[in-house]
Amino acid sequence: MRIEALPTPALVLDADAFEHNLALMAGRLPGRRLRPHVKAHKCTSLALRQRAYGHSSFTCATIREVEGMVAAGLGQDLLLANEVADASRIAALLSGAAAAAGDVRIILAVDSDATVDIAARDGVRDVVIDVNVGLPRCGCLPEDAGRLAQRARGKGLTVHGVMGYEGHLMMVSDPAEQRDRVEASMAKLLSAHTDVGGELISAGGTGTHQVNIWANEIQAGSYALMDTQYMQHPFGFRQALGILGTVISVSTKGWAVADVGLKAQGMDHGNPSIQGAEVLFCSDEHVTFRPNGERRPSVGDRIIVLPAHCDPTVACHEAMWLVRGDQVLERWPVDLRGW
Amino acid sequence: MRIEALPTPALVLDADAFEHNLALMAGRLPGRRLRPHVKAHKCTSLALRQRAYGHSSFTCATIREVEGMVAAGLGQDLLLANEVADASRIAALLSGAAAAAGDVRIILAVDSDATVDIAARDGVRDVVIDVNVGLPRCGCLPEDAGRLAQRARGKGLTVHGVMGYEGHLMMVSDPAEQRDRVEASMAKLLSAHTDVGGELISAGGTGTHQVNIWANEIQAGSYALMDTQYMQHPFGFRQALGILGTVISVSTKGWAVADVGLKAQGMDHGNPSIQGAEVLFCSDEHVTFRPNGERRPSVGDRIIVLPAHCDPTVACHEAMWLVRGDQVLERWPVDLRGW
Repeated sequence: MRIEALPTPALVLDADAFEHNLALMAGRLPGRRLRPHVKAHKCTSLALRQRAYGHSSFTCATIREVEGMVAAGLGQDLLLANEVADASRIAALLSGAAAAAGDVRIILAVDSDATVDIAARDGVRDVVIDVNVGLPRCGCLPEDAGRLAQRARGKGLTVHGVMGYEGHLMMVSDPAEQRDRVEASMAKLLSAHTDVGGELISAGGTGTHQVNIWANEIQAGSYALMDTQYMQHPFGFRQALGILGTVISVSTKGWAVADVGLKAQGMDHGNPSIQGAEVLFCSDEHVTFRPNGERRPSVGDRIIVLPAHCDPTVACHEAMWLVRGDQVLERWPVDLRGW
Repeated sequence: MRIEALPTPALVLDADAFEHNLALMAGRLPGRRLRPHVKAHKCTSLALRQRAYGHSSFTCATIREVEGMVAAGLGQDLLLANEVADASRIAALLSGAAAAAGDVRIILAVDSDATVDIAARDGVRDVVIDVNVGLPRCGCLPEDAGRLAQRARGKGLTVHGVMGYEGHLMMVSDPAEQRDRVEASMAKLLSAHTDVGGELISAGGTGTHQVNIWANEIQAGSYALMDTQYMQHPFGFRQALGILGTVISVSTKGWAVADVGLKAQGMDHGNPSIQGAEVLFCSDEHVTFRPNGERRPSVGDRIIVLPAHCDPTVACHEAMWLVRGDQVLERWPVDLRGW
C-alpha cells in the first residue's frame, strides 16, 4: 500500500529512522543493560523489534501493558515500574497458561508498607523497592528502603533490588550539570541498594541513558520514536514518529488547516511542529498553520505533524503504520493502551 | 455495582448533574434549536439520552462519528461540521441499509471549490456552506459563500444553508462584550445566508448558546459534561464529568500520587483540578497533588480528578460510567473515537 491510501490522521513511523534508533541504542546499552519502557509506544509489534535487537526484559507502567506483553509472549522478564493498590490482575497472570509454561516473571514496584502488603495479599511473587531519587512522585525515602525490603521478604516476596526514576533530570541541557545531578540522584539509589540487596539497580530514561552509569539497567522508551522536545537533545537518535494529516481548508489570509487536532496527540508539551510552517493553534480535530514559503498548500495535500511528546500521542491512536518513503510496510496495533 | 469496584482510572459521569444539564439545555433550546455536538462525548449512549430530551439532529466533527451515529440509528439528521478531502465513506453510508430505509441524512460542510467538487465527486447529496466568522480556521469568506452555493447547486448538491463557528468567542467573560462580538460575527453569517439561502443558520457552542440569537440552531456539546474551564462561566450547568483515580503513593513530604495521568485526559487547557488539593503536575500515568487539609491520604483512597477540557479527555477512554453516589448505573462505550 502507498502512504496516500492511509486515512488521516494516521500515526506513521519512519522505518529507517526507527531502525537507526534501535540499532544505536542496542550498541550503547546491549541486551539487559536496556530494559525498554513500553509506555512510550504501547505496541507489542514494536517491542518484538526491540527484542530482535537483543533486549528481552521490559518495563511497563500499567497492568494493561503487563497483560498485553504476556499475551504477546513477551512476559519473560517484566518490571511494572509503578505502584498499584490492587494487584489481583497480576496474580491472575501468574496463574495463567503462559506462567505455567515458565514464561512469565512480573516484578512489581513497591514503596510503602501498604504496597508491600498489597503485593503479598494479592499473590505477587517478585518486587523491587521503588526509591525516590528527587522527582516528587512515587518512591520511598532512601533510608526506608532496607526496612521495606525486610518487610517484603518477611511476607515471602522475592526482592530483586531497587529502582528510582530521575525524571526531573531528563531535560537538563548542560552535560556537566546533568552528570553531577544524576550522580547525586543515583547516590540515593545506591545507598538504598546497599540496604536492600538484589541484582537490580534500575533507573534512567532516554534523557539520561548515556550519563547514568550507576544503574545496571536503563528504562528508556522514547528513544525508539522521539519527539520535538527530545529532538532538542537527540543523542544521535532520529525523529521516527509523525502524524500524517490532510489539508482540508486553505484561507486567502495565509493560513491552512489540516485534520491533525489535539485529540490526535499529546498536548502537555505544547504545540506540535510542521516543517516549513508555523503552527498557530490546535483544536479538537484541526491544526491551523501558516506556511513559511511562497507556495500555498491545496486541499488534499498531505503533511507530517511532529508531536511534542511521543508517549501520549501514541496513546491517542488505534494503530501506527510503519512506512518507508511512500510505501506502507506494516500496520502495528497500539494494543497496550487503556488501563 | 458499587463505584469502589471500578478499575481506575475510570471516566465517570454524575447522573444527577448530567440529567440537570440536559434538562436545562432542552428548556433553553428545545428540539431542533439545539443540534448537539457529539465531538464532546463521542458516545452514542449519551446521544440517545440527548434524543430523549427532544433533540433529533446532531453535529459531528469526523466521519467516524458520522458512521457511529448511523450505526446506532441516530443518523436521521447529521451535520458533519467539518471539511473533508475524501467523502467516499459518506457515500458508502448513503448507499447502506439504513439509508435505504430512509433513515440517513448527512449534510457536509464545504468552504472551497475543492471541497464542493470533492462532495459532488464522491456522491454526497447535502451540504452547507461553512463561513469564516472570525476564528482563524475553516470557512470561506462571507462574500464568497453565494458563489460556492451556486457552484454546489450546479453540481447537483442540495445546499441547506450556512454554518459558522464563533469558537474564538466562547470564553469572552464580559457578557456585553461577548454579545457585541457574537452579533458582529453572526452578521457575517447572516450576510452569507442572504446569498446562499436554505433553511439552516447553524453556529454556536456551549459558551455562546444563550447570547447567539441569530443562528437558528446551536451546535453545543460540552454542556452535557462540562470541565473546569467551562465551569468558570457555567451558565447554570453542573460539572458532570470526572476521572476516578486511586492513590498509589503518599510521601512524608506532603504530596500524594494517584493513577490519573496525562494519558487519561486532555492537557491542552492545562492541569486538572482535585477538590481539597493542589495539583502539582501530571506525568504519563500519574497525577502528583498536595492535599490542602491536615489529613494525609492513604494508598487505596479514591479521588475524583476534574479535567480542564472535556472533549479530549473523553477521547482517551474506552468507556464512561454513569454513576449516582456510590452506585454505578451503566457503562457507556465511547464508541465514536478514532477517525
